[in-house]
Amino acid sequence: MTSSFYPPQRTLMGPGPSDVSPRVLGALSRPTIGHLDPQFIQLMDEIKGMLQYAFQTENELTLPVSAPGSAGMEACFVNLVSPGDKAIICANGVFGGRMKENVERCGGTAVMVDDAWGTAVSVDKVAAAFAEHPDAKLLAFVHAETSTGAVSDAAALCALAQQHNALTIVDCVTSLGGIPVEVDAWGADAVYSGTQKCLSCVPGLSPVTFSPRAVEAIRNRSHKVQSWFLDMQLVMGYWGGDSKRAYHHTAPVNALYALHESLVMLREEGLEAAFARHREHHNALVAGLEAMGLSMAVPADQRLPQLNAVNIPEGVDDTAVRAALLNDYDLEIGAGLGALAGKTWRIGLMGHACNRRNVLRCLDALESVLTAQGAAITAGVAAEAAAAA
Amino acid sequence: MTSSFYPPQRTLMGPGPSDVSPRVLGALSRPTIGHLDPQFIQLMDEIKGMLQYAFQTENELTLPVSAPGSAGMEACFVNLVSPGDKAIICANGVFGGRMKENVERCGGTAVMVDDAWGTAVSVDKVAAAFAEHPDAKLLAFVHAETSTGAVSDAAALCALAQQHNALTIVDCVTSLGGIPVEVDAWGADAVYSGTQKCLSCVPGLSPVTFSPRAVEAIRNRSHKVQSWFLDMQLVMGYWGGDSKRAYHHTAPVNALYALHESLVMLREEGLEAAFARHREHHNALVAGLEAMGLSMAVPADQRLPQLNAVNIPEGVDDTAVRAALLNDYDLEIGAGLGALAGKTWRIGLMGHACNRRNVLRCLDALESVLTAQGAAITAGVAAEAAAAA
Repeated sequence: MTSSFYPPQRTLMGPGPSDVSPRVLGALSRPTIGHLDPQFIQLMDEIKGMLQYAFQTENELTLPVSAPGSAGMEACFVNLVSPGDKAIICANGVFGGRMKENVERCGGTAVMVDDAWGTAVSVDKVAAAFAEHPDAKLLAFVHAETSTGAVSDAAALCALAQQHNALTIVDCVTSLGGIPVEVDAWGADAVYSGTQKCLSCVPGLSPVTFSPRAVEAIRNRSHKVQSWFLDMQLVMGYWGGDSKRAYHHTAPVNALYALHESLVMLREEGLEAAFARHREHHNALVAGLEAMGLSMAVPADQRLPQLNAVNIPEGVDDTAVRAALLNDYDLEIGAGLGALAGKTWRIGLMGHACNRRNVLRCLDALESVLTAQGAAITAGVAAEAAAAA
Repeated sequence: MTSSFYPPQRTLMGPGPSDVSPRVLGALSRPTIGHLDPQFIQLMDEIKGMLQYAFQTENELTLPVSAPGSAGMEACFVNLVSPGDKAIICANGVFGGRMKENVERCGGTAVMVDDAWGTAVSVDKVAAAFAEHPDAKLLAFVHAETSTGAVSDAAALCALAQQHNALTIVDCVTSLGGIPVEVDAWGADAVYSGTQKCLSCVPGLSPVTFSPRAVEAIRNRSHKVQSWFLDMQLVMGYWGGDSKRAYHHTAPVNALYALHESLVMLREEGLEAAFARHREHHNALVAGLEAMGLSMAVPADQRLPQLNAVNIPEGVDDTAVRAALLNDYDLEIGAGLGALAGKTWRIGLMGHACNRRNVLRCLDALESVLTAQGAAITAGVAAEAAAAA
């Protein structure tokens, strides 16, 4: 008969989930209460307020979707895309392709703007796409591409969309809490994220926020949203501002305890301090990797501090290295995805996992494993370079 | 600044979530590992095997959807209903109405078979609907209506559908683990449940199972499922049988630890023992309530042991009673939903919460609160009647 499961104690330095702090795990396991309990309603209000802080927005419609980031993405598309709508979709990694899937499953048409994986979205190309397709109703792009580690200029892209009277959907799954996400300053209309990246909460929830302009578009839809579960007009009835909450679905109560605690921790540290911490340890990691002789996959000015794509040296066995890190060092780093499979590793420094101890642990372990594999790297200098960075 | 949230210690005897055992809460807070970690893949396989046990099925496509029961319902509909399809939908409570919404949002037509709330689905009416609509491709019904506490004859309804070559979608959200759910013996095609009822796990996951016939229908679809997140052809790539798992979405790792532990506990107890325990404490609760002078809302042969709908005595203030139970006794019972709002209470005896202590606690508290409200009940006899039942 199957017995209880005791997971190993990993250090999670992949593309997410990231290490969850003991405070958040402690909150997760507090006693479950009902999803309509007055005390739970208060918790929901506090989560909403702290998500507004994290997203830097005053958007009333700000809440965590009760499912992972992929469902948050889908929530944005199904509520804002109607059959026949044209949407400009930027693809510079895996998640742009997934956005295209979403538009098409909503009966819309996707105009693709492709950029090389591992680089930012080209603002010029998007401008050209708007010039060619002035009837586009929507622009969607990924702020922080989890599959490549590249950041795009969200402010410039949102400004372009506004010039063309188009709504924006912005993927901030990996950016929220790690680099500035300025929803109101950008003028973004629908933004989704995940809890398992720089918020260092458990995976399973997707914070989203919708601008008043997006809410108006949702209210003016001529037919129902194709998803009942993700229909924001219904979800609003449960998460809405008035004290009488209409039952929509059973909220994931304990996961919301955890999200609440992770947001309390983010507020305690402060956004600016969190961003500075991510930059600091990113710089140390890059210095150590480069001292070892490894090279980064993304140009310096387009790099995400929280997700570091490293080129796999020629002749090195990708799978064997990651297996050795996991099995011998309990250290998880990420594989390349899609076009970058076998070509890069993705080293996460996200939220609670973004600290000096993890930078040094990762450099040490990687150095040992690569040396054992006979890779041409410079040993014994990484930690010192990281400390000096 | 917002501080950490410490929930009160409630006794959850509403329609779910139910009390979660300390074993399950302990599993929930174990260290997070990656969703592609080999040890996590093993956990997924074990969950699948134990869900097959709970559902009494050999269906290969058996897994927990990474979202609450409402999303599990939607997963069944979006994968099996195509635009233009006709579906017979049985409505004898809230969730039949939600099924209609799902069919229509998939572009299908719902033929409604309505029964009074608080009674079982009429097999004769469904037979008549099939006679009138021989082109119906699907029959959907709720096995255990969470909104009313009535159970329907799933075996007879599934047999009818098979005679008419229609697929079945069966809502077993409240039945799984509390009364027999015999997916293979019934010949049901798509069945969904929730984790927060008789499995006594935290809310947020929806176990589903699809028959080989349903899988064939999914594989033969002429166009893509409208939901990317719930597309079973994609989800199968992650939860599928081969060792190479394709990333689809980030699984809610810690919630799956909890589900695993709750299923281990169900296997340890055994299905038959769990069903007997639910019957035993249900009988005690009903005896106590009736001794007090209260009456049950559902005919005896159609009652769910795990969800007891009680008629609110005339002149009693529904809201005040539930508030007093919650605030003075930390006891949650459920309000009536929809047509039964203000007319019934719903007292859950689900999973871990289904025990003698809770039966007595509920009877005691209800007696005190009703007496204080001046309700015409017989005091001092409920506990004795329950013990004798």
